Amino acid sequence: MTKQHIQDRIASLRQTLAANDVDAIIVPSADPHLSEYLPEYWQSRQWLSGFTGSVGTLVVTADFAGLWADSRYWVHAAYQLEGTGITLQKLQKGAPNHIEWLAQQLPPDAIVAVDGNVLSIAEQDRLIDAFESRSDNSNIRLITDQDLLTQIWPERPALPNAPLFAHQDTFLSQSAKDKLAAVREQMSDIGATHHLLSSLDDIAWLTNLRGGDVDYNPVFLAHMLISQKDATLFIDSSKVSDEIAQLLSAAGIGVADYDQVKAQLSQLTPEDLLLVDPNKVAVGTLSELADGIGIMERIAPSTLLKSVKSVADIEHVREAMRQDGAALCEFFAEFEQRLGSGERLSELDVDSMLIDARSRQPHYISPSFPTIAGFNENGALPHYRAVEDKFSYLDVAEGAGGLLLIDSGAQYQNGTTDITRVVGIGKVTDAQKRDFTMVLKAHIALAVACFPDGIASPLIDAICRAPLWQAQMDYGHGTGHGVGYFLNVHEGPQVIAYSATTPPERAMKAGMISSNEPGLYREGKWGIRIENLVVNQPVANPQETEFGDYLEFETITLCPIDTRLIEPSLLREDEKAWLNSYHSRVFTELKDRVKGEALAWLTERTQAI
Amino acid sequence: MTKQHIQDRIASLRQTLAANDVDAIIVPSADPHLSEYLPEYWQSRQWLSGFTGSVGTLVVTADFAGLWADSRYWVHAAYQLEGTGITLQKLQKGAPNHIEWLAQQLPPDAIVAVDGNVLSIAEQDRLIDAFESRSDNSNIRLITDQDLLTQIWPERPALPNAPLFAHQDTFLSQSAKDKLAAVREQMSDIGATHHLLSSLDDIAWLTNLRGGDVDYNPVFLAHMLISQKDATLFIDSSKVSDEIAQLLSAAGIGVADYDQVKAQLSQLTPEDLLLVDPNKVAVGTLSELADGIGIMERIAPSTLLKSVKSVADIEHVREAMRQDGAALCEFFAEFEQRLGSGERLSELDVDSMLIDARSRQPHYISPSFPTIAGFNENGALPHYRAVEDKFSYLDVAEGAGGLLLIDSGAQYQNGTTDITRVVGIGKVTDAQKRDFTMVLKAHIALAVACFPDGIASPLIDAICRAPLWQAQMDYGHGTGHGVGYFLNVHEGPQVIAYSATTPPERAMKAGMISSNEPGLYREGKWGIRIENLVVNQPVANPQETEFGDYLEFETITLCPIDTRLIEPSLLREDEKAWLNSYHSRVFTELKDRVKGEALAWLTERTQAI
Repeated sequence: MTKQHIQDRIASLRQTLAANDVDAIIVPSADPHLSEYLPEYWQSRQWLSGFTGSVGTLVVTADFAGLWADSRYWVHAAYQLEGTGITLQKLQKGAPNHIEWLAQQLPPDAIVAVDGNVLSIAEQDRLIDAFESRSDNSNIRLITDQDLLTQIWPERPALPNAPLFAHQDTFLSQSAKDKLAAVREQMSDIGATHHLLSSLDDIAWLTNLRGGDVDYNPVFLAHMLISQKDATLFIDSSKVSDEIAQLLSAAGIGVADYDQVKAQLSQLTPEDLLLVDPNKVAVGTLSELADGIGIMERIAPSTLLKSVKSVADIEHVREAMRQDGAALCEFFAEFEQRLGSGERLSELDVDSMLIDARSRQPHYISPSFPTIAGFNENGALPHYRAVEDKFSYLDVAEGAGGLLLIDSGAQYQNGTTDITRVVGIGKVTDAQKRDFTMVLKAHIALAVACFPDGIASPLIDAICRAPLWQAQMDYGHGTGHGVGYFLNVHEGPQVIAYSATTPPERAMKAGMISSNEPGLYREGKWGIRIENLVVNQPVANPQETEFGDYLEFETITLCPIDTRLIEPSLLREDEKAWLNSYHSRVFTELKDRVKGEALAWLTERTQAI
Repeated sequence: MTKQHIQDRIASLRQTLAANDVDAIIVPSADPHLSEYLPEYWQSRQWLSGFTGSVGTLVVTADFAGLWADSRYWVHAAYQLEGTGITLQKLQKGAPNHIEWLAQQLPPDAIVAVDGNVLSIAEQDRLIDAFESRSDNSNIRLITDQDLLTQIWPERPALPNAPLFAHQDTFLSQSAKDKLAAVREQMSDIGATHHLLSSLDDIAWLTNLRGGDVDYNPVFLAHMLISQKDATLFIDSSKVSDEIAQLLSAAGIGVADYDQVKAQLSQLTPEDLLLVDPNKVAVGTLSELADGIGIMERIAPSTLLKSVKSVADIEHVREAMRQDGAALCEFFAEFEQRLGSGERLSELDVDSMLIDARSRQPHYISPSFPTIAGFNENGALPHYRAVEDKFSYLDVAEGAGGLLLIDSGAQYQNGTTDITRVVGIGKVTDAQKRDFTMVLKAHIALAVACFPDGIASPLIDAICRAPLWQAQMDYGHGTGHGVGYFLNVHEGPQVIAYSATTPPERAMKAGMISSNEPGLYREGKWGIRIENLVVNQPVANPQETEFGDYLEFETITLCPIDTRLIEPSLLREDEKAWLNSYHSRVFTELKDRVKGEALAWLTERTQAI
């Protein structure tokens, strides 16, 4: 694909807009399931713009083409958009986002098209609100019932069709039937007669099935419609083996064709009340709903149920963490040995070596997200990804050195992992050690934190950041995201980020798994992030009873944190004690799972400081 | 007033409801200015129910009378409502508030009355939303144009008419004219042609005038209507001397009668756009507005401008803090001497002695809120107030002891103060010392905190509470409120409370003054709170430049924290260092302002630990 291809595609899109009397088209990074990772069929924004970043919104009018992207993609997007005629619109404070831009720039009564199949209800509301509040009282009209892309995209890829498989019985603590009953109980509590689910991880969790339709997330393309007596999975039937069909049937779940969901919804009557999560259902999916059908918009019951892992689930995840920890020991031992022996290695080698090590572990399925291996200035880009045509070698000049940030994870049948470690290569400077130690202080502050049961997760972020803020440092991403159980590595509802809102569904509950990943990024120099996964646990030995219930974190990720990067004088005694206790636990848990070089590496790197 | 009086009043109210075809009436604690402290004329809820707490909502129907109050008033309200036929409705999680109760309990299409003069726009919206979402689709109708109380309240008090006075020139850093220009600039930025202010502290700040119409807050009853060319103060003209009229005139502010505000607003045309703060303007005030007038609802520009104190203002406040600190030394020295000599003292004596000591200081005007002096179990009620018919003596049995919590403050022309200290009386237990020290740790954690400039204030609350949470302790009130400059001791927009929402106007800015007041309350035993006022200051010696700007707190309250209540083994070295440095500063700042017993007391109580 050349820049000329992009220009040609935009030109033919403009012809289509003109032919359809459309003034502007929005092409978001989205699909009918509002997934993080999209099947190729839905990567229209990438196909049209050439920009490969995972999040970005393209807007095209007769005389403008712009791509809105946040700061993590600016460098990359500028490089990919150059010469295409598409301008990079930086998403930042004070600059209009694509919605504001359209509301400001379009002529009175303009028509804006978005394919309703890739537009969430919530996003449609934001568009309509902005268009209706035009200062000149001329509403901009939104149309969502036309797919203007397929006609100009002859080679549009087919939808994926990986077969479904059952999440192994050994690793399940609740049957699909029981999960469905729990969802129905919540529907009944709030008076919903029907519930449409389009979010793939909710459907995978609810059915206890997994698939391979998208990268990294073990999910499959489907919708699900649930009433008190029926439950129907809308899915390409070629993915459903007899065995899977039997499992579904046993759970009381019928199967219909993927495309039938709209028609089925068109059967609802005004007596029905349909529950949908406005952030997780596309307006296109509801396009055949009859007039007057009541819609209740709120978070899906399964999203809340799924976020709380059972005691048995957590025990499985602990085992997955031991496997992952052992794989990491093997990786690091081999990596350091090869580097030490003078071999030239690149960021891409880190990725492939990690996958090799993990795939030797039982129950391994795939990486849980694209590995981020960023050396020096690349590490300063929190969402950097080395690719074949742009990566760095881990070269250091004699007497010099650098920091390599490695953020990676895996899907195992018994759990999903996500870990970030930083390793020093060559000679590490005092400034780098100071930064690393400050991030470690933040990590420890959250790891040992105790907080009220039910507090909104964004409200505890300050506990993590306080040590960095004290030194006038901060980082531009969230401190923690929810993590699925052999499911999406990013799942809601909790998010430990002070930039997030604090609705009731973000309440912290025992059994939730989150990441603890403070960082620090020196643009053009180096990046640091220290990430472990943690489980919300009731306080082990409550000392007080009259001030409510409290949660604390159990750190479950098992892998040494490089003590050679620590400036010990910056740590308090209690911080050192946490680190030593963590390393002692890492050693105990992993020592019988590794041998040879890996055991030697583990032994050395878990020494107390 | 007897319980029978209350029953009679409720009975005659019910007759009025029936005569007017009204099914329910809501009587809130509010006035047309949505003030914290109400003139007697507007204390209808207290007159009707006999409940003297400052916040509570009465609802009366033909067969129900209930008063909704939050936990701080439960003991008191239960005592005052007993035998009146009015039930106490506890405001708590899981129980319906008065709005939910009405929406659930009233018959279809019921009519609910609230006097529009005491109903904010925001509260009206909440009522209408709740009533419109009735599950039986029968809207409840809200009427706000009738005052049903005056007819049954023959002896209703008159409105207050204390004369206005000018905030002394010495203590002003901006003229009323310049403040008005700043407000007009913001109106112009957002396209508002007119701006109605009903909030008394905004009006006092904007005019540089003060009054005495309500207790504790040096404000006067008025509305103000501002356009780009005119500004009118609606006020009882008997309060305005010739001198004050001249000051107003010089600032370009005209005067009209208090009651004329509605008529004046009725002159607005559809070309106008009226800015109002929906939380600070009553619907009754807007009742004569013509149809089709545009209303823009958002926080008043003056509320934001007022919250940021100038460098000169802060310098005056520092001096007020020295005065207040000197008064407190004199109070504490005398208090301990009298108690030590065997004199029997009560919580009420504490109040009067504090007022005596403060009134000897220059520029003193009044207390800034009702003194809370709570001994032992009374201290466990965060909003306790000793009154003539219910107070405790500070008696302790031989060998026993207790904790006295004193929360008090004053209005001086050069600043508003608010401080809480706890003193031990008799023998203090280890458990009390542990609690006191834990609260001190929380206080210090916030006092030394550094945080991003512009962060929403609720998001830093966790930094303060973290040490308490770590011990599974918490307190049920906010950690900090904004404080006015010779104005309301509680002012917005910032509030350091994790229960609060995080709208953009809660951004922390340099120059804001807040309280830092963590606490701990053992029901039936004792209460602890340590409160100083703090000013948001840019970090004095920034070490980093690439991660944005940071603020830190300057503690401005000057008074020893009782070191005899500290368990030193619970404090870290850095916490001890903060305390010793604070005490050294308190001594230096106050030593030349007190003498004799007070100087001896100050010297002893500021010794390093």
